Amino acid sequence: MNSMSYSDSLSKTLDSLGITEGTRLTVERDGRTYTGTLMPHHEFSAPDVLILKMKSGYNVGVRITPDTNIQVLDKPVEVSRKEEEVEFRKGLPKLVLIGTGGTIASYVDYRTGAVHPALSTSDMINAVPEIREIANIDATVLFSIFSENMNVENWQKLAQEVADQLNNGADGVIIPHGTDTMGYTAAALSFMLGDVSKPVVLVGAQRSSDRPSSDASSNLMACARFCTKADRAGVYVVMHDTSGDDSFAVHVGSRVRKMHTSRRDAFHSINAAPIAHLDDKGKMEVFSDGPRVTGDKVVAKVDMERSCVLLQYYPGMDPQLFEDVFMRCKGIVISGSGLGHVNENMIPLIKRACDNGTVVVMTSQCLNGRTNLNVYNTGRDILSAGAITVLDMLPETAYVKLMWVLANTSSVDEAKEMMKTPLAGEMSDRRTIDV
Amino acid sequence: MNSMSYSDSLSKTLDSLGITEGTRLTVERDGRTYTGTLMPHHEFSAPDVLILKMKSGYNVGVRITPDTNIQVLDKPVEVSRKEEEVEFRKGLPKLVLIGTGGTIASYVDYRTGAVHPALSTSDMINAVPEIREIANIDATVLFSIFSENMNVENWQKLAQEVADQLNNGADGVIIPHGTDTMGYTAAALSFMLGDVSKPVVLVGAQRSSDRPSSDASSNLMACARFCTKADRAGVYVVMHDTSGDDSFAVHVGSRVRKMHTSRRDAFHSINAAPIAHLDDKGKMEVFSDGPRVTGDKVVAKVDMERSCVLLQYYPGMDPQLFEDVFMRCKGIVISGSGLGHVNENMIPLIKRACDNGTVVVMTSQCLNGRTNLNVYNTGRDILSAGAITVLDMLPETAYVKLMWVLANTSSVDEAKEMMKTPLAGEMSDRRTIDV
Repeated sequence: MNSMSYSDSLSKTLDSLGITEGTRLTVERDGRTYTGTLMPHHEFSAPDVLILKMKSGYNVGVRITPDTNIQVLDKPVEVSRKEEEVEFRKGLPKLVLIGTGGTIASYVDYRTGAVHPALSTSDMINAVPEIREIANIDATVLFSIFSENMNVENWQKLAQEVADQLNNGADGVIIPHGTDTMGYTAAALSFMLGDVSKPVVLVGAQRSSDRPSSDASSNLMACARFCTKADRAGVYVVMHDTSGDDSFAVHVGSRVRKMHTSRRDAFHSINAAPIAHLDDKGKMEVFSDGPRVTGDKVVAKVDMERSCVLLQYYPGMDPQLFEDVFMRCKGIVISGSGLGHVNENMIPLIKRACDNGTVVVMTSQCLNGRTNLNVYNTGRDILSAGAITVLDMLPETAYVKLMWVLANTSSVDEAKEMMKTPLAGEMSDRRTIDV
Repeated sequence: MNSMSYSDSLSKTLDSLGITEGTRLTVERDGRTYTGTLMPHHEFSAPDVLILKMKSGYNVGVRITPDTNIQVLDKPVEVSRKEEEVEFRKGLPKLVLIGTGGTIASYVDYRTGAVHPALSTSDMINAVPEIREIANIDATVLFSIFSENMNVENWQKLAQEVADQLNNGADGVIIPHGTDTMGYTAAALSFMLGDVSKPVVLVGAQRSSDRPSSDASSNLMACARFCTKADRAGVYVVMHDTSGDDSFAVHVGSRVRKMHTSRRDAFHSINAAPIAHLDDKGKMEVFSDGPRVTGDKVVAKVDMERSCVLLQYYPGMDPQLFEDVFMRCKGIVISGSGLGHVNENMIPLIKRACDNGTVVVMTSQCLNGRTNLNVYNTGRDILSAGAITVLDMLPETAYVKLMWVLANTSSVDEAKEMMKTPLAGEMSDRRTIDV
């Protein structure tokens, strides 16, 4: 859960002095003295730098060498966890926050130095008091893992929990999620929750924890506003739309991809537009006609066929090396070159897999644009081998969808037909496209 | 070579009537008569549509049904291939065009209907007479294959041919190339040709062949201008910078990626900026200080270690399934999530591969931004397992570079060091980046 990454020697020094986040310190270096509260380590700062919040409210990073003098002034304030009953406001919608892990699940109160080890309802509401004006909020922690460790079982549990919460009276669900695999999880929920009747919003905690908590707060406010005011059901991802903190985009869960390793506006809708924009003042524009909120029961169909792979084609790919992978899997998604191509020497292997009852789906590593195997000879040969294309679906979404589809039908033909049919906004409708 | 993709029934009709590109036709449909010269099939048009260039110069697409009446007016003019000696203009630089295949290698003279089956010097120069003002042009066809079928052996032959041409007096080389794998080929040439002393420019033939040849011409003119006027040595890709035909970007060969399946401006520099822009009027802006042109001998180092793979990490990836791939390869590039992560259950396999002497390189499937495995626990575990990161290098470029590096050293440590060191502009210089 802890994103700190100090060097071994600095870790030892901190341990020996009993210094943890929230400790008030004095650090002397190069003749200057810095006094402040130790902040969580910035995720992009060097392993030998301490970040202190000074009285002014500003943070300073101090590089620590073996001869730097560090003195402890005050230990962190241990807040008594008075789980004060949050007043339920009649007439307001109810939102449930389902924690999955990531930086948002622990936070530091920067004014007092108190460290809150985990998310609780009152923590959350205290951090974002404005939210009480628009919704009653419940929070629950489902798991606490890094998003790169999210696995198919986590998606299944999460989808079931979302369905249960929505069927138990929640008007919407907000899921704080690490950004690494948030796109995959959003795609998985999109298929597992099918025509979910209420909003389900994943939100990345890009907040670097050395700044005031306003970032997490504004994120959460944007989600709450979207969930309560937009009248749109479905699975969405809400993320910063710019490098600032004041603009948010709402992406369709099956169309979104992390396109930068670190920027706050890393998430982009691909082959689709965001369905809404919000600012931090409460302004919201909704662009799509998407499904409206209803009271329908939510059904989670969480079965997944695990024997699926996602492979990127590259020149020099050796069909022999991948023979075992191709022959052992029930579903294969290939992100091919251009319109969805592979080298002709891969085609016999694709054919053998297809003959074997495997569903092979061609997508494009270009990400943007639609595949089309009817243009060139190679493409037609790939189709003849038995593979299918899925228009403008993202490779990652196609992989997630294929797992879901193969768990929901035992017929290869039906699986192919389902793959080619939009089920959760994941592809353009072939019938509306000029071929 | 032929990008036509008519339906089977239309193909049969055309064959039975002896109709080929350049044939003058009359087509009657829905009471209207269309007369014109048959154009090559547009790569995104439907399989049952004929495209005719009419007297006006405009093209029309006519959908053919079984009852459409088609009549042949004139067969294509077979141009006698008078390989007229192109006048050599003393004092002008010499550029060599090396054909690899793709639509640019055959073209139709739209005014006469004559079909030119392959590129010849005089064809080329006749198509772009302005080019004679700035350079003497030689052309040679090295191979004629679709770019999705380009393989490592093709890169090797191409690099050697480029070196030979440059050492034999060419002042620059232009390589028309299919767009599917042009980024990979550009990366391969970047490493194989090392500090090449002259400009080597790949150019995509995005020209859809149902429009006047001005597109191919303007492409070629932009390349020729860049090669002769920019004073920049190195391997570059020149492509449309916008969806129009009047603006061109010059990308560093190791930093460019096809980011759209069909748009004319599909190629983007990633984690870098284009080094130059040109317009179709001859205006050129060069932004970088890159290496200047010299007379130094060009050495092609074409050896490649073929036992390398490129794998994308995805949630649910089964380490067991990829055990064979990991244990059989000498080099593995993984496009991980976020900063370069994989699920922790993949780490033991990475460790076994590294212990086995395999070089494992982590890149990011986000494509944009730099990797960093020092931030989170998972990342540090991946480093401990023996993998390395390569800052902001593209996964595809890392794969190509790894093949080249492993062929140029037998030391694993040296290979890792070479991977982490910029050799051909493929990554930012670690020393200049604020860590």
